[in-house]
Amino acid sequence: MDALSKSQFPFTVEADDTHSSARAGRLLTPHGPIETPVFMPVGTRATVKGLTPTQLEDLGAHIILSNTYHLFLRPGPDLIEKAGGLHRFMAWDHPILTDSGGFQLFSLADTLKVDDDGVNFASILDGSKHRWSPEDNMRVQNQLGADIVMQLDQCTPYPCDKSLVETAVKRSASWAKRCRDAQQNPHQALFAIIQGGVFGDLRLQSVSRLLEIDAQNRFEGFALGGYSVGEPHETMFETLGATAAALPYERPRYLMGVGNPSTLLAAIAEGIDLFDCVLPTRTARMGTAFTSEGKLNVRNARFADDLSPLDPHCDCPSCTRYTRAYIRHLILSKEMLASVLLSIHNLRFLIALMARARQAILEGTFASFLRAWNSTPASQDF
Amino acid sequence: MDALSKSQFPFTVEADDTHSSARAGRLLTPHGPIETPVFMPVGTRATVKGLTPTQLEDLGAHIILSNTYHLFLRPGPDLIEKAGGLHRFMAWDHPILTDSGGFQLFSLADTLKVDDDGVNFASILDGSKHRWSPEDNMRVQNQLGADIVMQLDQCTPYPCDKSLVETAVKRSASWAKRCRDAQQNPHQALFAIIQGGVFGDLRLQSVSRLLEIDAQNRFEGFALGGYSVGEPHETMFETLGATAAALPYERPRYLMGVGNPSTLLAAIAEGIDLFDCVLPTRTARMGTAFTSEGKLNVRNARFADDLSPLDPHCDCPSCTRYTRAYIRHLILSKEMLASVLLSIHNLRFLIALMARARQAILEGTFASFLRAWNSTPASQDF
Repeated sequence: MDALSKSQFPFTVEADDTHSSARAGRLLTPHGPIETPVFMPVGTRATVKGLTPTQLEDLGAHIILSNTYHLFLRPGPDLIEKAGGLHRFMAWDHPILTDSGGFQLFSLADTLKVDDDGVNFASILDGSKHRWSPEDNMRVQNQLGADIVMQLDQCTPYPCDKSLVETAVKRSASWAKRCRDAQQNPHQALFAIIQGGVFGDLRLQSVSRLLEIDAQNRFEGFALGGYSVGEPHETMFETLGATAAALPYERPRYLMGVGNPSTLLAAIAEGIDLFDCVLPTRTARMGTAFTSEGKLNVRNARFADDLSPLDPHCDCPSCTRYTRAYIRHLILSKEMLASVLLSIHNLRFLIALMARARQAILEGTFASFLRAWNSTPASQDF
Repeated sequence: MDALSKSQFPFTVEADDTHSSARAGRLLTPHGPIETPVFMPVGTRATVKGLTPTQLEDLGAHIILSNTYHLFLRPGPDLIEKAGGLHRFMAWDHPILTDSGGFQLFSLADTLKVDDDGVNFASILDGSKHRWSPEDNMRVQNQLGADIVMQLDQCTPYPCDKSLVETAVKRSASWAKRCRDAQQNPHQALFAIIQGGVFGDLRLQSVSRLLEIDAQNRFEGFALGGYSVGEPHETMFETLGATAAALPYERPRYLMGVGNPSTLLAAIAEGIDLFDCVLPTRTARMGTAFTSEGKLNVRNARFADDLSPLDPHCDCPSCTRYTRAYIRHLILSKEMLASVLLSIHNLRFLIALMARARQAILEGTFASFLRAWNSTPASQDF
């Protein structure tokens, strides 16, 4: 472990892959351990759409993500704090990570104004005006009470002029320091966020700036932000590995907003530990299942009398109890249960995939596991 | 028990109330016993909206209702039969009752044509033309494979000319006989349906006609149809008791389509055993909770920071885990989980109310139980 590791959030690398940078780890939190690599289901508004916490537990979710931007606007952090924090408010007694809202601010708000001291933004709900300094954002995340909080950052779009990306890198690093100084709750881990867009030198500059701060006052983890914002898949991988490699070995690494199964496995090989994405649940609500055969549009007429499960290799209740024909019937009938059953399945698919990857790393077979995955038709479909 | 009770569906009255016609009973079915009085959650399209069978089991549902009319149109009885029947199709391994579709035909279909031999109707989905004789309807319900099937009947609206109601009574009785002759599956109980609208003499005429048929070929139960179609609450009770009293003692009595808690208890006092209604789940989807304080519109601003449960006297997971403030947040955010949690609660409210009524009947305290209920503000609110 690092020298400064008297953290309440010790992260241990339990095994390293010999052929890649993949590793299996374990992060302790006040609400229990998280085994990595891990996929975090997204519960933007304090609910993973349509699912109860019991259903999430049953499908093996270790940690879920919620969003500071949305919860700040509704129902507001004062209520959540009064309710005993986000865990009690949403009845999820396992780890939670809250995103700072940096991504939402820079992707949703067209009325946004940013300066070195913070951001002015308008509510998407009622147009009301707000301002967040890094300290304001930390205070809100402290009220929410997640186990892991993210720094306020400036996320740049793709494509984006390099000088603007560099400004965002510097500003995000300055905000990281201010968040680190402001975030004093020992029960919350703070992750810094690396920006730099598609520019390898700026990614490394971002890492250096954050490590300087880290040397004084430790971050419990690092996230790679500003990826998956529209750039080609290959472009992300041009800089992802070198960026991850520049980070401290025994600190968790979180790639934000990526949920494509093939991309997850490739990112694990580059040394990433945590992932989140709305993809599996959003895709589910559109009637599509992630399966070992690839993506399945269950609405398709060819499933009308298909009495096989969504995925014969899946152990989730949607697969062990229901047929494609039944779920298609629910989709056509616009029944809520379609979204529920497909969300359970798609989340289980990614969570089980992460568990299998972890097992392979622990057993020293990750290279062949990855080769096997990449030789399936499914891997090309994602 | 009746003379002819070699039924696969024995119904035993376990206790009679001394002050009213209320009784506690037990109906055996191939998928397990049903303790009465009982409320049956409605799963029109082979799903109780938004809930999994596990959630229904957990809230104590003994039996659910599904609808032949809707399932006939989509996904079609051939698919459900091929899937192994409705129980397997929807993964509900407890009793199911299918309504024949009589009510839907006469309330939904404006292109309907009825004659003594059956009904012509157009699909609400695609306008396609169909015809059902009583035998056709039995064949479809046989394919669906519910434990309890309902005869095809002609339901009259309110208000309705008495001569038209009398025609419907005669026709429904003739169809009851044809359904009885056609329905030969020993694993399915057939319930006859009493019509007669608000006319006491026609209700009794309907009972007589059905009992004549019953003397030859036994119905496993009797339902009171054509109530709760728009007539005032009091008007139903003018004829309900006498109609129920004219029915064989040891046969279950089912009042169709009623779900108001106060009405349920009053109907139990008149000797009714089974109920179904979309009210608790439909009300839930509109953001309203059934509680011991009455109906609660959870959307109301006064619940914005109310950290108490929907109903402090309720044992359902929605009440033991969540606050009104959280559920209101879900409603305002248009989150599916709002409907899920409120449906669980409202169903549990009615199911628990039925269980308490049953217990009171068994203990000989139903009169005081009913008095206590009727003295609460809640009873007036329903």
